[in-house]
Amino acid sequence: MATENRNPEIRKDAVNNRLVILSPARSRRPSDFKSKSQSKSDSSPTSNAQPQCPFCAGNEHQCAPEIFRFPEDSTSDWKVRVIENLYPALSRQLQVKSDNEEHRQANGSTGEVSLGGFGFHDVVIESPVHSVHLPDLSPAGIAVVLLAYKKRIEQLCAVGSISYIQVFKNHGASAGASMSHSHSQILALPVIPTTASNRLNAMKEHHNQTGKCSLCNINTHKLLINESTHFSSISPFASTFAFETWIVPRYHSSHYHQLDEDKAIDLGGILKLTLEKLSLQLNDPPYNLMIHTSPLHIVSSELPYTHWYIQIVPQLSTIGGFEMGTGCYINPVFPEDAAKILREVQLP
Amino acid sequence: MATENRNPEIRKDAVNNRLVILSPARSRRPSDFKSKSQSKSDSSPTSNAQPQCPFCAGNEHQCAPEIFRFPEDSTSDWKVRVIENLYPALSRQLQVKSDNEEHRQANGSTGEVSLGGFGFHDVVIESPVHSVHLPDLSPAGIAVVLLAYKKRIEQLCAVGSISYIQVFKNHGASAGASMSHSHSQILALPVIPTTASNRLNAMKEHHNQTGKCSLCNINTHKLLINESTHFSSISPFASTFAFETWIVPRYHSSHYHQLDEDKAIDLGGILKLTLEKLSLQLNDPPYNLMIHTSPLHIVSSELPYTHWYIQIVPQLSTIGGFEMGTGCYINPVFPEDAAKILREVQLP
Ligand SMILES: Nc1ncnc2c1ncn2[C@@H]1O[C@H](COP(=O)(O)OP(=O)(O)O[C@H]2O[C@H](CO)[C@@H](O)[C@H](O)[C@H]2O)[C@@H](O)[C@H]1O
Ligand SMILES: Nc1ncnc2c1ncn2[C@@H]1O[C@H](COP(=O)(O)OP(=O)(O)O[C@H]2O[C@H](CO)[C@@H](O)[C@H](O)[C@H]2O)[C@@H](O)[C@H]1O
Repeated sequence: MATENRNPEIRKDAVNNRLVILSPARSRRPSDFKSKSQSKSDSSPTSNAQPQCPFCAGNEHQCAPEIFRFPEDSTSDWKVRVIENLYPALSRQLQVKSDNEEHRQANGSTGEVSLGGFGFHDVVIESPVHSVHLPDLSPAGIAVVLLAYKKRIEQLCAVGSISYIQVFKNHGASAGASMSHSHSQILALPVIPTTASNRLNAMKEHHNQTGKCSLCNINTHKLLINESTHFSSISPFASTFAFETWIVPRYHSSHYHQLDEDKAIDLGGILKLTLEKLSLQLNDPPYNLMIHTSPLHIVSSELPYTHWYIQIVPQLSTIGGFEMGTGCYINPVFPEDAAKILREVQLP
Repeated sequence: MATENRNPEIRKDAVNNRLVILSPARSRRPSDFKSKSQSKSDSSPTSNAQPQCPFCAGNEHQCAPEIFRFPEDSTSDWKVRVIENLYPALSRQLQVKSDNEEHRQANGSTGEVSLGGFGFHDVVIESPVHSVHLPDLSPAGIAVVLLAYKKRIEQLCAVGSISYIQVFKNHGASAGASMSHSHSQILALPVIPTTASNRLNAMKEHHNQTGKCSLCNINTHKLLINESTHFSSISPFASTFAFETWIVPRYHSSHYHQLDEDKAIDLGGILKLTLEKLSLQLNDPPYNLMIHTSPLHIVSSELPYTHWYIQIVPQLSTIGGFEMGTGCYINPVFPEDAAKILREVQLP
């Protein structure tokens, strides 16, 4: 690869306005610690039957209460279950005053703000079978998972005091997962988190300057990996991690939950392809998947420049104090090189 | 501990304006992956003599060029060496135009910005001996390291096109370290990174509202761990990580490199105490240490509300997709509880 000969570059895009250092030389540094390369056991279950796994079919009683399942009238033959998280980060029981401000305690002299930890934290069990991971499903099977996110988001929208909903998936212990059975999570927050408001600001600024949505208008030159009817997979111009991949709707849409059934199957297909390519190229890496949607209560003037997308980050290294300190990531792989490699991966 | 009975809380402080979810219930969740608890071998060397370690005394020829050493006229009996990083993230060789804008390539239609990766990336070797870690040194010994940072920052200030300098330390493989010999790093950037500009904005806002510096005025009620003549160690009100600890100057000072020799010895003492307490309480955890200083070229109106401090983060868990997606961290330990525990740690 030609990567090694490139000079380092500092980049920023018009979606997140986030700085990244691209620095191929970094990939050559040695380590005197034991290898951190991911073993299969880090991310994959060892057998089909896991009597002690609460997410397996047959162990439903070991789980926190179910919210719904697909198909809705199924019994033991469910495909996807959405359940409460047994150890929720936020509490659905906390009393919320109709006026959020009453609920908020601010200390004027120190400038500190605290808010009761009201919110919803759910788990989506993506398959009844322990050994079946998301990309093992068919495009239509993945669509069932994607439509379960949509349905749950629509339910949560109806709760007045929810401002933002984060759907995410951790695969493998080094990506933070504590459970190996294929699953994802939905966290509904009473506040808009920093990255979502930063993204809103960055996309608004770009729209003010160019009249365009930065994701409709995203750079695919040398960065496109694949295209389906409604979606593109790309390596983003300012990739924060090696082989970071985005799946971006080719149609303009502010909120993930606008997804319809046809598009869900199309998205299932390109998501399957993307995860299979990453798995083959990078040897089944741990990864995180995040759906970046817009705050729930955006106003109509914000619709022209808000656009949801999916971010997939294979976890290939451990970040250090520089990233924690600055919020700026050092990525040893130029996205142009990652896109070329992923474009050319041949699946068996 | 009473921690388990607390309700979750969402907090924000007036220093970083960063949201955090405090959620003790999270600490009870099980894991079906192998234990991630840190072994001694993750963070500690196995023996004194490491013939293959370039940072050990006697192996200086295996290192990238030296910038300076302390004491300056020492030969084999050096205490601290500042050297170039052999695999630098940024390049000191890249030509920089006097006007940074000329050097910048912006794509008006996509809003993308790229900048040549000019900058300095140095390593500070904190001891000639492989088995000696930072807290093993005396307060005066640590002061030599702290004054080496200061001297190098002063040299880098003289390079016109540097805007921000990040000093950081990775200890242990799970904190990102690739080398086990005690060391830290200095990265000098031609741009101001996001966290530094966010901090500047948050502290400015607080100053506008209250007329006070948010770090001079920081909440120590239930959050103070220790105090020395010139510094306090505290658990920050909106701790992003369990047992995150800050060391804050009790005098107002915008830039770390204003540190004088007396204060460096005092800081060495409280830093030693803090690292020893964290190590004893948390079983020698991997950790990151970051010095948060102000952008180099702040104007005099910014001096009243800019204040440097040190952040120490023990790495006790792996973050997941929620944190990557939202920038909001889930911390299972309330800082009030962490401060009480750390206040009461008895060193042998
Ligand atoms: N019987 C049961 N019924 C219902 N739910 C059950 C259950 N047993 C376990 N759970 C829940 O299932 C979830 C599994 O989630 P993951 O494996 O994706 O990672 P986890 O949330 O533990 O933490 C990772 O993701 C979070 C969020 O990004 C990070 O804060 C953290 O550091 C990282 O390790 C857990 O949240 C757990 O509480
Ligand atoms: N002979 C030699 N002479 C001079 N220098 C030498 C050398 N041999 C090695 N080095 C340098 O020494 C440094 C050691 O640094 P650390 O162990 O703190 O972590 P590293 O920078 O590798 O990466 C961690 O920190 C960075 C920054 O936070 C993260 O990007 C990354 O993911 C994380 O693993 C490396 O930067 C390496 O390039």
